[in-house]
Amino acid sequence: MNHEFYMARALQLAELGRYSTSPNPRVGCVIVNNGEIVGEGWHQKAGEPHAEVHALRMAGDNARGATAYVTLEPCSHHGRTPPCAEGLIKAGVARVVGACSDPNPLVAGRGYNLLRDAGIEVITPCLEAQAIDLNKGFMQRMRSGMPWVRAKLAQSLDGRTAMASGESQWITGAAARADVQRLRAQSCAVITGAGSVLTDNPSMTVRPAETGIEQEQRLWRQPLRVIIDGQQRLSGNEQIFSLPGDILLAVSNAASCKVRRDESLGTLSIWQAPLTVANKVDLPALLAELGERGCNEVLLESGAQLAGAFAAAGLINELVLYCAPTILGSEARPLLSLGLERMEQQLRWRWQDVRMVGGDLKLVLTPDA
Amino acid sequence: MNHEFYMARALQLAELGRYSTSPNPRVGCVIVNNGEIVGEGWHQKAGEPHAEVHALRMAGDNARGATAYVTLEPCSHHGRTPPCAEGLIKAGVARVVGACSDPNPLVAGRGYNLLRDAGIEVITPCLEAQAIDLNKGFMQRMRSGMPWVRAKLAQSLDGRTAMASGESQWITGAAARADVQRLRAQSCAVITGAGSVLTDNPSMTVRPAETGIEQEQRLWRQPLRVIIDGQQRLSGNEQIFSLPGDILLAVSNAASCKVRRDESLGTLSIWQAPLTVANKVDLPALLAELGERGCNEVLLESGAQLAGAFAAAGLINELVLYCAPTILGSEARPLLSLGLERMEQQLRWRWQDVRMVGGDLKLVLTPDA
Repeated sequence: MNHEFYMARALQLAELGRYSTSPNPRVGCVIVNNGEIVGEGWHQKAGEPHAEVHALRMAGDNARGATAYVTLEPCSHHGRTPPCAEGLIKAGVARVVGACSDPNPLVAGRGYNLLRDAGIEVITPCLEAQAIDLNKGFMQRMRSGMPWVRAKLAQSLDGRTAMASGESQWITGAAARADVQRLRAQSCAVITGAGSVLTDNPSMTVRPAETGIEQEQRLWRQPLRVIIDGQQRLSGNEQIFSLPGDILLAVSNAASCKVRRDESLGTLSIWQAPLTVANKVDLPALLAELGERGCNEVLLESGAQLAGAFAAAGLINELVLYCAPTILGSEARPLLSLGLERMEQQLRWRWQDVRMVGGDLKLVLTPDA
Repeated sequence: MNHEFYMARALQLAELGRYSTSPNPRVGCVIVNNGEIVGEGWHQKAGEPHAEVHALRMAGDNARGATAYVTLEPCSHHGRTPPCAEGLIKAGVARVVGACSDPNPLVAGRGYNLLRDAGIEVITPCLEAQAIDLNKGFMQRMRSGMPWVRAKLAQSLDGRTAMASGESQWITGAAARADVQRLRAQSCAVITGAGSVLTDNPSMTVRPAETGIEQEQRLWRQPLRVIIDGQQRLSGNEQIFSLPGDILLAVSNAASCKVRRDESLGTLSIWQAPLTVANKVDLPALLAELGERGCNEVLLESGAQLAGAFAAAGLINELVLYCAPTILGSEARPLLSLGLERMEQQLRWRWQDVRMVGGDLKLVLTPDA
C-alpha cells in the first residue's frame, strides 16, 4: 500500500472530529508496522489527547520502527497536552508521513524538524489539498487571525429568498434544512443580524435530532451565536436569547445596551463594535474578534442586507446556496442587497461543488480572486 | 442481445435527425437477422425516405425473416412517401419491435395493426420514455396542436440577467452560448419580443460554426423567427429582418403594419394576432398558429416581460437556465417579470438535468404539474 492509502484512512479519522475539535484542528493518525495498521486515533476535543496520543496508545510496542501517518504536522509546543512530536520520538517510530504543515506560528515546521533531528524520516506533503480543506477554518485563522466565513443562503430558481411580505417558509425542503443544521454544527459561530432576529425570530441553534449526524461524532457544543445589532433594536426578549448556548451581541454603544440574559443558559457578551464611517458595525473588526475567540469556521445566516454587506466587503470565503425548484417572481426579495451598476463590478465565483440535497440543488462556490 | 440493445442503436440513429426532420419526427430503424445488424437507417428530412426505407434498402434480401426495430410506430398512411408498414410487410420481416406509438391521428395504432394483420409479430413498447423524449415536440403537437415551448434564460447566481442599464454581454461563457446555438438549431421556431429586438438587436439565427455540431447532422434550416410586436414598435430596419430565414411578425393590427422585407432572404408573415382583454398578443393563439405551421419545438429567447408572461400563463414546457458563477446585485434585472404575492402562488418545477456547460451550470426543469 502506498502512503496515500494510509493517509486517506487518517483523514477519515480526522473527519470524525468535524463537529467537536474547535478551536483545535481536526486531526487523524494511523500507525503502520510491516504493512499492518497497529494504531489509529483522532482528536476529539480541545484539552483531550491529540490524535497521535490515541494512536500510539493503541499501537503500544508495535509503534517501534513503524510509520506514523498524521493529517497535520505534529505539535512541538507544550499546550494543554505534551508535544506530539516528542511522543512519536519516544515511541520509536522510524518514519512520519505528514499531510501538511501546521500554520500555527507555535508549530510551523518545528514539529517536522524535531522529528528529523531525532533521526526520524519525514515525508511531507501527502494528500495535502484534502488535509487543508478539512481544516480551512483553522488554517485561515492561523494565517490571518480571521475565521473562514461561509455564507448560507436559500433561494428560488430566480434568486429570491422570500415574498415581499417576508413569507418564506419553506422555500427549500427538509433535507436542505438538515444540511444547514450540519453546517451550523461544524461552525464555531453563527452570525445573523438584528433584522433577521426581529423578522424571523430564529433560534440559530443546532438541533441534534435534525442533523442526521451519527452518535460517534455527537460531541456537541452549540456554536456561539453572533448577533449584529448596530442600531440596538433588540430587547433581549427575542427567542434567540432564551435558548441554551453562548451569545455575542455586537452593538454600537455597549454602555447604553439594556439586553440582559439568564446566564445559566450561556454567556452574553455585549461587544462594543468599532463602527465604519457609515456608522455600521465594522465587519472585519468583528471577524478579527471572532478569530481572537478561537473561531475557525463561522456561518453567516442572515437576510439580504447583511449578506450583501459581507459580499460587498469581500468577506465571504465560501458561498453555500440552496436552490429550490421554484419561481417566486420579480416582486420577491433579492438574494443580496447589493447595488452594482456595471458588469465590471460583478462578483465572480468559482464552482466547488454542485449536488442535489433532497429536492433542492446545493451550490458551493468560493471567490474567483 | 436483448431488444433494448438494438432499440438503443435505433435511437442513436434517430438522434442524427435532431436538427433536420421537422415537421416530421426523428426516427431510426435497425434490422437484425440472426443476431446481426443487416440494415440501419434514419429519417433525414421531410419529403425524403423514412428510416425504415433506408434500413430495408440496406438490408435487401436479408430483411426476410428479420426483426425490425423502429423508434416510432411505422406510418400507415400515404403521405409524401408510401406507408412504411407496407414496406416492412413486403420485405418479409418476421417481427417488429416498436419503441412507442405514433400519436399522429393518421397513424395512432393503425401502423401496428397493419403489421399484425399481415402476420408479423409486434412487440411494443421498448425504451418508450427515451423515444418519447426525443420527439416531445412532435408528440405534443400531435396531441394538442401546440408546440413544445422551451424557455432559455441566462442568469447570475442571484437570478439576474443584466445590469439595470441593460448591460449584459456576457454573463455566460462561450460554451453556454454554443449550447444555445444547438437549442436554436433543433427548434422549428425561435420566439422573441419587440422589446428585446429594440434593446439587444439580436440576429436570432443559427450560426453553424458556433454550434459544434458535426457534419453528418448539418442539414440546416434556419428556425422560423417569431417576433411578438403587439405595440408595433418595429420598423423593419432592425438587424433581425436583414438576415436569411423566414420571419413571422405577430402584430395587433396587420393592416397598419408597415414592416416590409427583401423576400429573397425568406418570407415575412405579418400575422394578425388575437388580443387578450389586456390588449396583449394572445400567447396560446400564437402557439396554436405555430402548431398549424408544423412547429414541434419552439425556443423562447426573450426578456423578462415576455418570459414572465409565458410563465404566468403556464405555457412553458421546459425551462433551460444557464447559471453563471457571478453575482450582479439587487439592482440588476430580474429573470422574469412576474408579480406574485404569496408563497401559494409560487411556480414549482421538477429537475430534469443539471450539468456544467463550460464554466456555467445548465439547469433543465419542467413544470411540477
